[in-house]
Amino acid sequence: MDSIGIGLIGTGFMGKCHALAYRSVKAVFGDVPAPRLEVLCDVPAAKAEKMAGEFGFARSTDDWRQLVDDPSVDLVCITTPNKSHKDMAAAALSAGKHVHLEKPMALTLGDAKALTALAETAGSRTIVGYNYLHNPAIQHARQLIADGAIGRIVHFRGMVDEDYQADPDLPWTWRATKADAGLGTLGDLGCHLISLAAWLAGPIESLVAETRTVHATRPLPDAGGERRLVENEDVASALITFEKGVHGIVSTSRSAWGRKNSIMLEIHGTDGMITFDQERLNELRLYQNRGPKAEQGFKTILSGPAHPPYDRFVPAAGHQLGFNDLKVIEAHAFLTAIANGHAAYPSFSDALHFEAVIHAIAESGETGQRVRI
Amino acid sequence: MDSIGIGLIGTGFMGKCHALAYRSVKAVFGDVPAPRLEVLCDVPAAKAEKMAGEFGFARSTDDWRQLVDDPSVDLVCITTPNKSHKDMAAAALSAGKHVHLEKPMALTLGDAKALTALAETAGSRTIVGYNYLHNPAIQHARQLIADGAIGRIVHFRGMVDEDYQADPDLPWTWRATKADAGLGTLGDLGCHLISLAAWLAGPIESLVAETRTVHATRPLPDAGGERRLVENEDVASALITFEKGVHGIVSTSRSAWGRKNSIMLEIHGTDGMITFDQERLNELRLYQNRGPKAEQGFKTILSGPAHPPYDRFVPAAGHQLGFNDLKVIEAHAFLTAIANGHAAYPSFSDALHFEAVIHAIAESGETGQRVRI
Amino acid sequence: MDSIGIGLIGTGFMGKCHALAYRSVKAVFGDVPAPRLEVLCDVPAAKAEKMAGEFGFARSTDDWRQLVDDPSVDLVCITTPNKSHKDMAAAALSAGKHVHLEKPMALTLGDAKALTALAETAGSRTIVGYNYLHNPAIQHARQLIADGAIGRIVHFRGMVDEDYQADPDLPWTWRATKADAGLGTLGDLGCHLISLAAWLAGPIESLVAETRTVHATRPLPDAGGERRLVENEDVASALITFEKGVHGIVSTSRSAWGRKNSIMLEIHGTDGMITFDQERLNELRLYQNRGPKAEQGFKTILSGPAHPPYDRFVPAAGHQLGFNDLKVIEAHAFLTAIANGHAAYPSFSDALHFEAVIHAIAESGETGQRVRI
Amino acid sequence: MDSIGIGLIGTGFMGKCHALAYRSVKAVFGDVPAPRLEVLCDVPAAKAEKMAGEFGFARSTDDWRQLVDDPSVDLVCITTPNKSHKDMAAAALSAGKHVHLEKPMALTLGDAKALTALAETAGSRTIVGYNYLHNPAIQHARQLIADGAIGRIVHFRGMVDEDYQADPDLPWTWRATKADAGLGTLGDLGCHLISLAAWLAGPIESLVAETRTVHATRPLPDAGGERRLVENEDVASALITFEKGVHGIVSTSRSAWGRKNSIMLEIHGTDGMITFDQERLNELRLYQNRGPKAEQGFKTILSGPAHPPYDRFVPAAGHQLGFNDLKVIEAHAFLTAIANGHAAYPSFSDALHFEAVIHAIAESGETGQRVRI
Repeated sequence: MDSIGIGLIGTGFMGKCHALAYRSVKAVFGDVPAPRLEVLCDVPAAKAEKMAGEFGFARSTDDWRQLVDDPSVDLVCITTPNKSHKDMAAAALSAGKHVHLEKPMALTLGDAKALTALAETAGSRTIVGYNYLHNPAIQHARQLIADGAIGRIVHFRGMVDEDYQADPDLPWTWRATKADAGLGTLGDLGCHLISLAAWLAGPIESLVAETRTVHATRPLPDAGGERRLVENEDVASALITFEKGVHGIVSTSRSAWGRKNSIMLEIHGTDGMITFDQERLNELRLYQNRGPKAEQGFKTILSGPAHPPYDRFVPAAGHQLGFNDLKVIEAHAFLTAIANGHAAYPSFSDALHFEAVIHAIAESGETGQRVRI
Repeated sequence: MDSIGIGLIGTGFMGKCHALAYRSVKAVFGDVPAPRLEVLCDVPAAKAEKMAGEFGFARSTDDWRQLVDDPSVDLVCITTPNKSHKDMAAAALSAGKHVHLEKPMALTLGDAKALTALAETAGSRTIVGYNYLHNPAIQHARQLIADGAIGRIVHFRGMVDEDYQADPDLPWTWRATKADAGLGTLGDLGCHLISLAAWLAGPIESLVAETRTVHATRPLPDAGGERRLVENEDVASALITFEKGVHGIVSTSRSAWGRKNSIMLEIHGTDGMITFDQERLNELRLYQNRGPKAEQGFKTILSGPAHPPYDRFVPAAGHQLGFNDLKVIEAHAFLTAIANGHAAYPSFSDALHFEAVIHAIAESGETGQRVRI
Repeated sequence: MDSIGIGLIGTGFMGKCHALAYRSVKAVFGDVPAPRLEVLCDVPAAKAEKMAGEFGFARSTDDWRQLVDDPSVDLVCITTPNKSHKDMAAAALSAGKHVHLEKPMALTLGDAKALTALAETAGSRTIVGYNYLHNPAIQHARQLIADGAIGRIVHFRGMVDEDYQADPDLPWTWRATKADAGLGTLGDLGCHLISLAAWLAGPIESLVAETRTVHATRPLPDAGGERRLVENEDVASALITFEKGVHGIVSTSRSAWGRKNSIMLEIHGTDGMITFDQERLNELRLYQNRGPKAEQGFKTILSGPAHPPYDRFVPAAGHQLGFNDLKVIEAHAFLTAIANGHAAYPSFSDALHFEAVIHAIAESGETGQRVRI
Repeated sequence: MDSIGIGLIGTGFMGKCHALAYRSVKAVFGDVPAPRLEVLCDVPAAKAEKMAGEFGFARSTDDWRQLVDDPSVDLVCITTPNKSHKDMAAAALSAGKHVHLEKPMALTLGDAKALTALAETAGSRTIVGYNYLHNPAIQHARQLIADGAIGRIVHFRGMVDEDYQADPDLPWTWRATKADAGLGTLGDLGCHLISLAAWLAGPIESLVAETRTVHATRPLPDAGGERRLVENEDVASALITFEKGVHGIVSTSRSAWGRKNSIMLEIHGTDGMITFDQERLNELRLYQNRGPKAEQGFKTILSGPAHPPYDRFVPAAGHQLGFNDLKVIEAHAFLTAIANGHAAYPSFSDALHFEAVIHAIAESGETGQRVRI
């Protein structure tokens, strides 16, 4: 397989991120089939055409079904708003295409399950855009844990926060509705945290949660002060139990002033601790109960060539990867899986667990009862 | 009132801390009755005598009841292991003495309530050693909140951790028993966190919790490998609801490698956020949604003369207070209350709330049910 | 001008960085002529061919003169070892090509001056790869200074360090020779610092310096322990005076264990201070003497859409740019200059000042005398 | 020797600090003669009397010569403005008293030398208040260096800054005169840095420096806008050579907005690096070239019982010492030296080197010439 035809649906935040990733991945890694940027889809058609010129796609369309059916397209990237994920992904799978889908897979757990079931019978590969999993610092954390660097895991903490819904005066949008957005902060941010928790500490078994809508209503734009209900949560927290029996806590807010892309992790072990903050994505902190007490302390490890595949981007430590680079690593993982015929991580099946957990948090937040995953 | 006679029970970690505080408080503040260091109690008598010489107490005894009844003693400091707090404090109150009691007040909530009831009928003043409340940075945080610097509080997070029980090979001690220690990490550390949560965000109404004993057994010393059960919790977390309706999370571990005196606080408001970490006790971090977006960020405020009573210790910012200085401020608060005839904060009544919450966490940890305070 | 033909010489660290930049720049920015990746040069030819496949260049060659003369090539990127910069750049200029040259321009100041003189008479555009200048955080720092956010600049400090020559046992290489490498840490790292100093605080007028070779000799590879002299400096520091009369200090080491890409800046003003560290390239720290003393502190500003052109990469703050992204911004600046017919920054003329300063530091380090630039 | 009579001259910032130190030192350490607080001196007499009551001194006076001659006084603490140090110290030495003198010893190097000569012939002990030397974290740094933890020292950097003279509108005071204050930032701050440099990296041999007065004039108070000249330096920097041949840089500013008590140190070794910042005085950062590259990083070591004499204050790490605690350690060092009949560190002789260096910086700042110490 020399090359793979790419079709990309969406040209917003994540659409651009995918375009950049597939433009760079061959130059960064060398060892994958070269992506051919075939078709770009957005609406209206003029926008799609303009962006195809900028992103370097050969053709454009305003009809995503046409993109999915295009014989030159082997791999469909779906980066449109959450509401459309399910139908697009299902169509792409049915057309035999590999699917690179942005998270979350669907608005409801039922839809995510149905989509996963479809993927399991399809002959093509899937991956969901849990890009933070691909950070070399996170991969190194996972390796350290596997190597016993902190002993047996005994406790986990994670918080993921942003402030894009912190301002009480922000106008009401579709993000506030269950019908169009599904979950609130859990769907946007919480699922990233759960993906990291499960990747580092294993699957989650059960949980009990609380959720809050911080700003109960928001003003309708140009409506003379009229306000509409916010239907989904701004804040959610849960006490979680991992399958290994470990206790943990997770919390997320989309109304946390000052937090721009904060994902704070603490993994407590019998022999040490690892901590991480996504706002400093090139730093991992490690404490080990080793050597003289007078010299123990948290070590700040800067990502470098010793943490692959950092070396594919820069051969010198401390120079730093950025947000968009993580998507390049994700694209590389997907292309490699396709080329080698194995499953990519996280496939739809893997991601289903993450999404089951966020829906369980939402459910427990409503009922107050413990929910098993 | 020119001077106040001090009797101190205990010469360990906190005993020394009290001795230093009452030696320094008049020189630091000037405006309080001078403490007279009258009687120091410890066992055996020789130790009490030696330490009285070092601490500068006039006399020593190995009988705490004698200290309590000594007519030269106006104020009794109790810094012995938790198990003894209740009887000593009750005796001191009954003898008409002011009582400066280390936390927690008692091993059980019932005992704490009984003691509080006794204090409420006594004519003397009480204070419990929740020393972190007296940090100028914390006082400033409270003032900022009162002034609306971060708007209305919408979320609270707190974690308090140390690693003194992190090592799986540490021998079994009385700390592991309900009879002698009562709660585990909740009694040692968790109550500090709750004191801060309530001081900053108001009283707590209800909670649901999980608790874990990380190291189920520990080796008996000199017992050929025999191990004994750890009866209380190493880790505890709770989803809490404040009386104001605000949701929050708290978590504590005494088995958190690398954490030496970590108390991490986040107070989320509608207009900003405040964070704090006790391991950098002279720094407060403040984010405000003010001014141009390009210039917003978390500000690190170093404690200084603008944050009273820091100025009583050092007239220049950034020079830093230490752990023992906080006890001096606490002693000042207590002496001032005694001199002026008003209640000190936190009195036994105030502290009862903190201790009710940690017992509620322990209870919910066992039952899995929500507990109202 | 719809597109610009790119010829790239070199496929190492910086060669790859250029390839990635010119692959991405149109997709990131949209508003520039599309780069056409025409010719890639390296030796041997097989390597050039292989890398052309990976980087996506149309053709390859092992003869850089052929690349320079290729009529499809409008813009020549030079990323080979320093020794070759001068001849390649001169040939490209003579062939009427735009030149994107990695720093430093030449091994000696004389060569750099000659090259600059050539560029000034050429009809084409030039830019030198002082990529850290293009960091949105640095651009914001410059804007803040221009806006008076810290008043008048009164002092400057800068340190740039790495540890690639810290290990005493590293074998001797061409980097240790004046003939092949020219300067030591000054040429590799120091010139970056000077570029930032001049960009933020204005041109430098004079200086006095000290230099040191930390590891006087290094073992020759496979030479049975024979050691050869290190001819250039591992550490250099200078007291500098800016044309504005401001005093500053700069220091650089390539033997600084633990420093991976550290560029620490302090700009002291009459009304505030700005600090920055390249190892956290998305963070700018700002102190302003404004508002109540109790609320003053250093603010950590995370790069975001309010700091253009960050927004072209990610529309949300705190998500972070990486090292390679800065080269994309540099490429954009160059393509824009070419398209619009104005000078790019820093052109050869601009960069000459930076390089004059590092040579002055080396000279003062030898003579001990103050050197005027 | 059971006890030592203390006479303290001065009740300001450092006077209070000394009073607190001598009140606490026996309770903290146990193993020293008990200080008896005999006489306190300040003007006017009423202030001395009031402060003697607060500080717990037995008697007070407004005549420092009377204090020096008081037979109950064995040890004289001198904490008055710099101008008075020399005469008071000389008188105390002549009276056979031990002298605890605040830094700097004198306004001029000549006076400091004369005083040192006097001390060398006296039978009593001396110590100068370079309190930051006594920080357990700094002691640990010195121990690490001695143990070879970072190999051979190859480079040193130090910066000491505050902002008490940063505001251009601050009125003119005696601090601005050579006659009353002597040096500017070098005397207030720079000498602390030099004490740390020499303690950690050994004596300094020669230097070349630049100095600047940032605010050339300041308004006279209540003088209708009239301004007077500032005669001494606000900023000073030097390139220094240690006797061991190591190159280093030092810089100091009293006009550095945002710096409250910043003393930043970097000690570069052939096998690692140590860094420190006095604004986080309980943290030491250590990088070692040991173990796998993937796990190397700067370790943040929190001061704790493993770093004596931290354990005398608090038995648990991370609880933090404060500024005033360092003076207690200094007082302990002095009392121990007196009791044991050995020299304290830094004695007048030791401190003379520090002060010779700051005067050399000032001299080089004026002449532009290298100065040998």
